[in-house]
Amino acid sequence: MNAPTETTRPPVIGVFDSGFGGLTVLRALLLEMPDARYIYLGDTARLPYGSKSRETVVRYALSSARFLLEQGADLLVIACNTASALALEDLRDALPIPALGVIEPGADAARAATTSPADTVLVLATTATVHSHAYAQKLRSLGLSAYEKACPLLVPLVEEGWLSDPAKAAVTAEVLHIYLIEALSAAPKAQTLVLGCTHYPLLLPLIETTLKSLRHPMRIIDSARATARSTARLLAQSPPRLHTHAADLPNLTFYATDSTEKFQHLGSQFLGQPLSQVHLLDLGG
Amino acid sequence: MNAPTETTRPPVIGVFDSGFGGLTVLRALLLEMPDARYIYLGDTARLPYGSKSRETVVRYALSSARFLLEQGADLLVIACNTASALALEDLRDALPIPALGVIEPGADAARAATTSPADTVLVLATTATVHSHAYAQKLRSLGLSAYEKACPLLVPLVEEGWLSDPAKAAVTAEVLHIYLIEALSAAPKAQTLVLGCTHYPLLLPLIETTLKSLRHPMRIIDSARATARSTARLLAQSPPRLHTHAADLPNLTFYATDSTEKFQHLGSQFLGQPLSQVHLLDLGG
Repeated sequence: MNAPTETTRPPVIGVFDSGFGGLTVLRALLLEMPDARYIYLGDTARLPYGSKSRETVVRYALSSARFLLEQGADLLVIACNTASALALEDLRDALPIPALGVIEPGADAARAATTSPADTVLVLATTATVHSHAYAQKLRSLGLSAYEKACPLLVPLVEEGWLSDPAKAAVTAEVLHIYLIEALSAAPKAQTLVLGCTHYPLLLPLIETTLKSLRHPMRIIDSARATARSTARLLAQSPPRLHTHAADLPNLTFYATDSTEKFQHLGSQFLGQPLSQVHLLDLGG
Repeated sequence: MNAPTETTRPPVIGVFDSGFGGLTVLRALLLEMPDARYIYLGDTARLPYGSKSRETVVRYALSSARFLLEQGADLLVIACNTASALALEDLRDALPIPALGVIEPGADAARAATTSPADTVLVLATTATVHSHAYAQKLRSLGLSAYEKACPLLVPLVEEGWLSDPAKAAVTAEVLHIYLIEALSAAPKAQTLVLGCTHYPLLLPLIETTLKSLRHPMRIIDSARATARSTARLLAQSPPRLHTHAADLPNLTFYATDSTEKFQHLGSQFLGQPLSQVHLLDLGG
């Protein structure tokens, strides 16, 4: 097989997250652009980002992004709401390649979904994402009100897989119920709900059931799909300069900073297909 | 005030944990030895340890321990079950000062509490501690059977404070109920319960209520108190050589690797008293 030339080979998209959640974004990217090359990095040795400070998250995000750049990424997708909220500007300043987060596409999709300009958008996210007010700022710039609700227990419940066994799914539903009651009492007219964490798409059926039990139907926005569409648009409209040295990468390459066995096992639930080999990576610290 | 001499000044005890849980051990140490000097390090930028691999936990524990040594610790207490289970031997090999973990004292206390030599001890702990089988090995060496149960959702529930609000405490109770039913169906004759994570003492009232509802009373062992007694015994029987340069330390010094505000706020619940100033520390990574 001939090596693809600089201009015709598929782009290399670096995707990074604190752990597994970003695989829901990779899944959407694969549906949108199946021929691209993807290098995914899960910073599992330092997860979760969602409970940590801005300074710490920026430091972690920069080291992850630099690694993906060294591996040949032409473009970076920050498939983590917390890192997008806290570190996107720092990453854009520090990197010579374009970087997309998940928050702007999610907010744009919420704008497109709202019918009334007076609509309040409810955003469920990690504590760090909520404290950054990145969603509220972006939604306000689009003319929408926002109420951001921190839901710190949802990530551990998803990571533990408390979603199918009836007694365990009932616990997850009760936690969701408590968070949604608190959120809807603060924003009773909200009709649009943004899943502001890449773990939450796995909760979609439970969220829909809970909203039905609360008799409060909502339009639900999954930032993963919106981010994949934005990435495809960016690549079509203003394609980045492609590095030649990364031309021979396989379709999917995975790195994790902690146990690769766990990554392979849990990751397949997020990606929706078995993961090929996962490489162990030491980012120091 | 004259500087204390090398032989008469109080010992400096370095205490470290991945986060806040170790403060329950510090609380017990303060009750046992109120006059010692304590340097506490919470590695909050890299928590939790309990879901991570042995290699990663050893690396984190070594860097934390070396920092405490540089600060003048005469003795190290690893106030974290996961680090004790996975890294104690590596720490003892690498450090020139004595190091105590929480697992041996907890197992010894369980042995002392059992009345029948055929008793099975039930250990609730993090996933990493359970996978290490450190408790089972130690308990077997004391002639006891052990069943170790991983309870990964308890740490996030404690850290979120889902303990007092009735609806939230009911969720925590239901999670405990699920874990205890699973554990007691595997070890139906267990009469002794070891709290194998330094977060769990905050769950003691809920654990007692849950065991009552299951009609399965148990003797409950809190490793924190057992560890404090072991530390006092070690200092009395074979006192370590005291460094002179650390003689002027205050009674309590706190370091955290992530947000010091959060540490100060949440930490007071674990310590049972307000925390004085917390210093931010960058261990790299």
